[in-house]
Amino acid sequence: MATGLTYAQSGVDMDAGDAVVDLIKPALRRTHSSRVLGAYGSFAAMFRLDFKEKMFKRNYKDPVLVACTDGVGTKVVLAVEMGRLDSIGIDCVAMNVNDLIVQGAEPLFFLDYLGLSRIRPQETATIIQGVAVGCEIAGCALIGGECAEMPDIYKPGDFDIAGFAVGVVDMDRAIDPKRVKKGDVIIGLRSSGVHSNGYALVRRIIKEAKLDLNKVYPELCAQELPVLAGKNKQKRVKQLDEAADDDKENIPTAIAPPTEKTLGDILLEPTRIYAKAITKLVRSYKSKRVVTGMAHITGAGIEGNLCRAYPEKFDAVVDRATWIVPPIFRFLQKKGGVDEAEMWRVFNMGVGYCVIVRPDFVDGVMKKLKRQGEKPWVMGHIEKGTGQVRFE
Amino acid sequence: MATGLTYAQSGVDMDAGDAVVDLIKPALRRTHSSRVLGAYGSFAAMFRLDFKEKMFKRNYKDPVLVACTDGVGTKVVLAVEMGRLDSIGIDCVAMNVNDLIVQGAEPLFFLDYLGLSRIRPQETATIIQGVAVGCEIAGCALIGGECAEMPDIYKPGDFDIAGFAVGVVDMDRAIDPKRVKKGDVIIGLRSSGVHSNGYALVRRIIKEAKLDLNKVYPELCAQELPVLAGKNKQKRVKQLDEAADDDKENIPTAIAPPTEKTLGDILLEPTRIYAKAITKLVRSYKSKRVVTGMAHITGAGIEGNLCRAYPEKFDAVVDRATWIVPPIFRFLQKKGGVDEAEMWRVFNMGVGYCVIVRPDFVDGVMKKLKRQGEKPWVMGHIEKGTGQVRFE
Repeated sequence: MATGLTYAQSGVDMDAGDAVVDLIKPALRRTHSSRVLGAYGSFAAMFRLDFKEKMFKRNYKDPVLVACTDGVGTKVVLAVEMGRLDSIGIDCVAMNVNDLIVQGAEPLFFLDYLGLSRIRPQETATIIQGVAVGCEIAGCALIGGECAEMPDIYKPGDFDIAGFAVGVVDMDRAIDPKRVKKGDVIIGLRSSGVHSNGYALVRRIIKEAKLDLNKVYPELCAQELPVLAGKNKQKRVKQLDEAADDDKENIPTAIAPPTEKTLGDILLEPTRIYAKAITKLVRSYKSKRVVTGMAHITGAGIEGNLCRAYPEKFDAVVDRATWIVPPIFRFLQKKGGVDEAEMWRVFNMGVGYCVIVRPDFVDGVMKKLKRQGEKPWVMGHIEKGTGQVRFE
Repeated sequence: MATGLTYAQSGVDMDAGDAVVDLIKPALRRTHSSRVLGAYGSFAAMFRLDFKEKMFKRNYKDPVLVACTDGVGTKVVLAVEMGRLDSIGIDCVAMNVNDLIVQGAEPLFFLDYLGLSRIRPQETATIIQGVAVGCEIAGCALIGGECAEMPDIYKPGDFDIAGFAVGVVDMDRAIDPKRVKKGDVIIGLRSSGVHSNGYALVRRIIKEAKLDLNKVYPELCAQELPVLAGKNKQKRVKQLDEAADDDKENIPTAIAPPTEKTLGDILLEPTRIYAKAITKLVRSYKSKRVVTGMAHITGAGIEGNLCRAYPEKFDAVVDRATWIVPPIFRFLQKKGGVDEAEMWRVFNMGVGYCVIVRPDFVDGVMKKLKRQGEKPWVMGHIEKGTGQVRFE
């Protein structure tokens, strides 16, 4: 009987799991406040909704819990290929938390699920530490997670990650698309790049055009481009777009100094997390209904997401000349020969999040967003229509 | 440009996703109460914590949210091999909800994440409909989910499923292991079989012993075995164990008529969900502290889970003669030549859930559990010790 089969022989290493827990504990603790209850090792995590110390007391009158789940799609494959596992967890948090705040919710806590072939403690801990960093940025607590070894499902080195976020909003403060009115103004917040959508297409382009993830492509080296405003914007957009199309060594009108980021680095740039800026913004207007709608620009681009923020009797009119599409998108488009319309249907094209506000409050909202480190710009407005996004 | 790459060509079929949503809507709706707010298509799901109609009003004084995430491990591989996708979702709900209720929480809502190679609407919907069935059994709402097509990660037909459950408990009603005292009695609730743990070992045994998932093995055909009590139990346990060891065509002392279940069917038997029975039990004792601890017997068996329910200064003394280990475990043990101790370290061995109660309330608790359709039995008690589980 001593030579019989054991669980360890069948591919499950319980010690490796314990090693991961030890490695990630400090990162988890950094995300915890006194609202997180219970001990490690309990069956489920506990989070106190009303914290009784006056300083923190939220006094929810009619609390509504807001919840969502999402993964990062095939961006994980790119992360595995690049051997860069430290930021994919940020993407996972971002994809969830950015959805959560669209409802006006304050993110409370997060849990992650990691499916993989084999727990290699250091690598696995690196992924989860990234989740913890994302939670810190989002201001929510990482209170639980599961790490499942499934060598029959995942190839060695491969993994999948899913996240789960819960937030809370008081019933009468929840964002309701019905509040959006004709004349409301659409404010854009920039994305950090491709974020976590469209990576199936990105990877197809890399393959077909034989792109090198480890190469520094000069046309990608312009750092963060300025958001345009004023009368010269159309001209400058044209200049920049043409520069990218000609595949010149440098984009002449780019103002920031060139970076030395490889294509892989640019593609793995973590998704921006808008939670703190948006939560502060929404909270800052007590009972006034200033922010009428919001949209996280995720799979299906501006077209597929902005339209979820207002009723069908309206259109969003978006002026594409108000911002410069970041070079990575033009680069991918050119290398893949992707149709312009398809690009806008798949990618965020530089816009990560939209806030729809009453016209009288545009300046105030812009000021508040800037104070949070955002670079917002007016990208369009709401008109009568049929639930579409119209580009101008 | 018309021949350029598109997102659909790169393996993402948005229409298939929409088809799944249409297929699963009726199943989702069956899990919804008026506490579920918001419309399909919103960025995140909304769940009202305090429902204001008097009938349903919960009046949480100091609500603590309880959350957990889990998958079903390599039981999915077996489901894929058997082509039986309708009940794996029940397992996913069970693995989470059974963890949740250990804290005394009432399950509120559930979300699922499905990673797969390609959405085949009918198959994918079948999996998610199983999740919805699980949620109905657990009495929680399936309010959201994500279905991610990742052909680079998952082989055709393969998938992974993870679930996320959120519940609520009033602070002073939360189960606290510290309340467990010497002399408390451990009541067992039967499992439906292997549940969702140890499948890496199960599959290894199937492979090594060349077992046929589609075969009806006579030694597995005794239906649900009686829980023993009284003076003859030791003798009958011995008889039954020996019968299995000899691989006889029938277990002579089994009282139920034989079933025609294949090995695969028995192994895919969905994990039992204890939510309604336990929630009712806990709620039925207002302020009295009758139930002092609970444990969901999951990965690492009775040994690894029961010990999480009480402080380190105690031991749980478990009398293994109080129940009959279901035939599937003895069958797997024999076929795989698995050591007895290893069996108890990996599998639930017939016990799915444990409730620790004050001795004076054993009869009352047993009666209440029976009224909920459970077949509880006294399986042990709490003694002074060092945080171990001692088998007798």
